[in-house]
Parts: sequence; C-alpha cells; structure tokens
Amino acid sequence: MMSLEEGMLQLDRVLSSFTRDKKPESLYVPMDYLLGLKGKRMRPQLCLLATWALKGKVEEAVYPAAAIELFHNFTLMHDDIMDNAPLRRGRPTVHAKWDVSQAILSGDAMLVEAYKMLVLGNPLHLKAGIELFNQTALEVCEGQQMDMDFEQREDVQVEEYMRMITLKTSVLLGASLKMGALTANATSDVQDAFYDFGLNLGLAFQLRDDYLDTFGESLATGKQLGGDILADKKTFLHIRTRQEASSSEIELLDQWKGATDDPTKKVSEVKGVMERTGSEVALMELSNSYLDKAMAILNTLPLEDEGRNMLSSLSEYVTSRKH
Amino acid sequence: MMSLEEGMLQLDRVLSSFTRDKKPESLYVPMDYLLGLKGKRMRPQLCLLATWALKGKVEEAVYPAAAIELFHNFTLMHDDIMDNAPLRRGRPTVHAKWDVSQAILSGDAMLVEAYKMLVLGNPLHLKAGIELFNQTALEVCEGQQMDMDFEQREDVQVEEYMRMITLKTSVLLGASLKMGALTANATSDVQDAFYDFGLNLGLAFQLRDDYLDTFGESLATGKQLGGDILADKKTFLHIRTRQEASSSEIELLDQWKGATDDPTKKVSEVKGVMERTGSEVALMELSNSYLDKAMAILNTLPLEDEGRNMLSSLSEYVTSRKH
Repeated sequence: MMSLEEGMLQLDRVLSSFTRDKKPESLYVPMDYLLGLKGKRMRPQLCLLATWALKGKVEEAVYPAAAIELFHNFTLMHDDIMDNAPLRRGRPTVHAKWDVSQAILSGDAMLVEAYKMLVLGNPLHLKAGIELFNQTALEVCEGQQMDMDFEQREDVQVEEYMRMITLKTSVLLGASLKMGALTANATSDVQDAFYDFGLNLGLAFQLRDDYLDTFGESLATGKQLGGDILADKKTFLHIRTRQEASSSEIELLDQWKGATDDPTKKVSEVKGVMERTGSEVALMELSNSYLDKAMAILNTLPLEDEGRNMLSSLSEYVTSRKH
Repeated sequence: MMSLEEGMLQLDRVLSSFTRDKKPESLYVPMDYLLGLKGKRMRPQLCLLATWALKGKVEEAVYPAAAIELFHNFTLMHDDIMDNAPLRRGRPTVHAKWDVSQAILSGDAMLVEAYKMLVLGNPLHLKAGIELFNQTALEVCEGQQMDMDFEQREDVQVEEYMRMITLKTSVLLGASLKMGALTANATSDVQDAFYDFGLNLGLAFQLRDDYLDTFGESLATGKQLGGDILADKKTFLHIRTRQEASSSEIELLDQWKGATDDPTKKVSEVKGVMERTGSEVALMELSNSYLDKAMAILNTLPLEDEGRNMLSSLSEYVTSRKH
C-alpha cells in the first residue's frame, strides 16, 4: 500500500509530467509555469490525507487529487484575468506574461485536463466523483460571479459575503476531502462529514486570509498589504466596520471610497476605523469559531489517532499561516 | 421509442431550461443569450441522427447531444473574446454585450454544464463518453491554439492549416456522430467509421466556410465579407495563392499585408490574385473531395436507406449552405 509521502511524490510526478510531448507547446507551457509557482498543494493533500486516514488506497487518490489541483490552478489562471492581477506568488500572472487570450485558452484546456485526471481514478467511483466535481466546479464559478457582482453593489450583507466565500473557496476544500473519502469507499455519511469538515476549515482559512490581507506582515505574503482596502472589496471586515462605525467614521470611509491618490494613507485610515470598531477582533473570532466547528466534526469522524492528528495538524497549519 | 423529431424538441427543451432558477442569474443569462441566437444545432443533430440511424434509443442521445451543443457554445463564447469579434449571427457577442470577465466566467460555467449533461446520459456509456468528450475538447483547444500561433507566423504550410481546422472544427463533428453511435451501442468499428465520416464532413464544411468568407454573398452571412483577407488569416486560400502567385502578384499581396486603410480595395485586389491563381477553384475541389470521402464512408455504414439518406441530406445541407 502506498504511503502518504509516496502519494504526494506521485502527485508531483503526475502534475509535472502530464503536459510532456503535447502539442502545440504554446498551449501547455503556461500550465507548467503556473503549476511551477508551487503553491502549498493544500487541496490535493487534503484529498490524499482523507483516503489515507480512512485506510483507503492512497494510490487511487492520486489522480483525483491531481484533478482537484488542476481545477484549482485553472481558476487561478482565469480569476487573475478577471481581477486584473499582475502578480501571483511574486511572479507575473499568465495573462501578464503571455496575454489574455493565452490565459483564457490554456485555462480552458487545463480544466479539460482536470477531467482527464478524474477518469483515471477508480472506475467504480467515476460517476460519483464527476458529479461531485461538476457540482463543486459550478459552485466555484457561482462564487466568483457573486464576488464580481459585489463590486457593483454597496448593500452587501455579511450573510451574502459568507455565502460568496463558501462557494468561491470552501466548497473546494470540502470536495477535496470528500473525494478522498469516496476513494476510500467511505459511507455517504462519512463522506458528508469530511465535506462539512472541509467547508468549515475553508471558511476559517478564507477569513484568516482576509485578516492577513489587511493586518498581516507585508513582505512574507508577496501580495500588496491592504489590497482589499485599496480595491474597496466588500469583505467581512468592510461590511462589519461600516455597520459598527459612527457617522463621522462612515464619512471618513466614504471619503476614501474609490480613492487611488494616496494608497498608504487610505490603508492606514481605513484600517484605523476597522480597529476602532473592533472588526479585526470580530473577524478572528469568527474564523476561530469555524475552526472550532471543523475540529468538532473531525472528532466525530471514524479515524484512528494518527489520521485524526494529521488532519488536525494540517488544519492548524493552513489557518495559522502567515503567508 | 422517441422519434428523431421528438429528440430535437426534447433537446430544445433541455437547452432552454437548464439554467432555470440557478443563481446568481448574472452567471447564467449570457448562456441563455448565446444559445438563444439559435445556430443550426448541426452538432447535436448529427448526434441524434447517428443514434436514430443505428436504431438506438434517441431519448438516450438527448443529453449527450446537449453536452456537445453546450461545449460548442462555450468555445464560441471564449473564441469571440480571443478573436475580438464584436458580432455573432448579427448580434453583439457576450463580451461585447457584457464584458470580457463575464464572457470568461459564463463560458467556464457553460463547459461544466456540458459535463453535467454528459453524466445524465446512459451510465453504461459514461466512461467512454467522457473520454471521447475530453479528447475532443482538448483537441479543439489545440486547434484554437494553432490558429492563434499562425497569426505570428508567415511560413504556415497547407498541411498545418489542414491540421488546424481538423482540430478546431472537424473533430467535434466526428465526436458528435461517434457519441450518437456509442449511445446506440454500436461496435467500436462502426463508432470509428461514424467519426471518420464526421471528420471528412467537417473538413468539407470548414473549407466551404472559408470559400464563403471571401466569395460568398455578403448580406446573408451576417459576417463582413472578406473578413479573412482583412485579418490576413493564413487560410488555405491565403497559403495556396502565395504559392501559385507570380513575383509581381506576391509584391501586391505584400503591399496589402497588415493594411487597414482601404478595406474594400484590399479585399478586391487580394481576391483578384486568388482568382487569377485559381485558388478558389482549388479550394472548392478540395472541399468536394472531402465531401466525397465522407459519402464513401457513409456508404460503408451498416444503415438502412432511411438513415443513410437523412445523413446524406444533412451533409449536403451543411456543405452547401449560403449562410
């Protein structure tokens, strides 16, 4: 039986070789480039980990895990176009390095490659795996759509924001774990519990990510600190701060809305209101409450200590990260 | 058993209702808009027709046929961005009516919806159906990539052009027919023969399309006449004309390369060289040779007269169209 470490190595091999000898190279090089920026591979790790923790065959989880990582990178390639982002992990984004057409087309082909990986999994789980994948992929698109729609709106509520990040980020973590549980032939109850664990973990993770965007340590992230504030993003922090702010603070926030002339001052003043309304504390409390919920679900799962501990450690890791 | 007509009606119902009640609406409205421009639905028709001609269950071909039509429309939505096309069938393209981000995201979701349709087909054919679909989808992306790469090159050969249109256009016609044959439980030999029939039909179709772009009757097409010439596209006509042209004609062609100041004169002068070198005649001969090949394959298929005649009529229709 394949160990977890061997599973991760095999995943690396699959992801670094699937474009080999494919033509035209110009279609596939951007995929290699983006995968080569080496993210944490959190999602495929969760998939392999779920299979391993449930005593399933890790080797059967490698292709589904690869499918999930390819899907995730496809969304990055296209989201970066939509967000007009010049950099990812400190390097030029695909549309910046090549052009928008190239990023669209290589992204499209990468999504198809994800489906090709799925078909290479255990045929017994093909239908359920593809249904889970389809559902999740569509929800991720819906989340991205909500995110774009929020840009045109001033009345976004906390509940809507939570729904948006659930779709855009959390469902894929839930699906990664559920895919691993499916691969291990778990009952549907256990599969669903893994999904819920991932969903709550994902919310904790995204809210922590929002915190770091404004209150993180700048250099390590590779992102511009205060990017959400500069883009006037309707995050939990933004919405909650306006709810709790005094009328003079609202006036100050309104003055900075859409402003681009003095970014440093904008970030520092808006951040000040966030702090005075205690919104960054509320944000971390909310994040922690989702992490607690995830851990409570983890404790109900039919796992031995080793598996539970690994999932617990990874959860702590992804929600405590500084970068 | 469902008739072919009922199959087409059912396909219409599926394609006009699949977005119902889905949220956020902004993600799905562009799909309805593009599908509402009502193409000929050639590809899903070929799929249903293959199942019907082979005495398979037409009702089982409806979802695979819908998958193919959704995939085709996904490619249109994204190709129109890459081609910077303002109009499709005389109406604004999705990125022109909304914006590029919307066309990217709704296109992405439309591709996932195509996979959702596939899963609704006969589960016995799920694996083979998805493999065929994946392979085809990737080839279509590869064809689009070649097409884009040709823009940067001056040395494109006829063989490369034929390979490009094979991937970009013909494989999807082949796959539509093969999907229908698969649904009818045909042997793999028969499936492959349907595929080859479609491949040759697709080449005949695309070459005829190239002819019409330059030599068609302008108003009916809804496209600008001479669009390929104005964009200096490396079509068969372009490549073959340069091969056969005298040095003074080459000089004339070179003068018009990249020119945008007098489009009417550019089209008429380049067209003149095409005619003097007999390239439009060679183009139609080539198109006809592929149509002949398609018909020869059709004659080898294990079909009754009724099915063969329907496939033959549809083939004549799609390759003789004026618009």
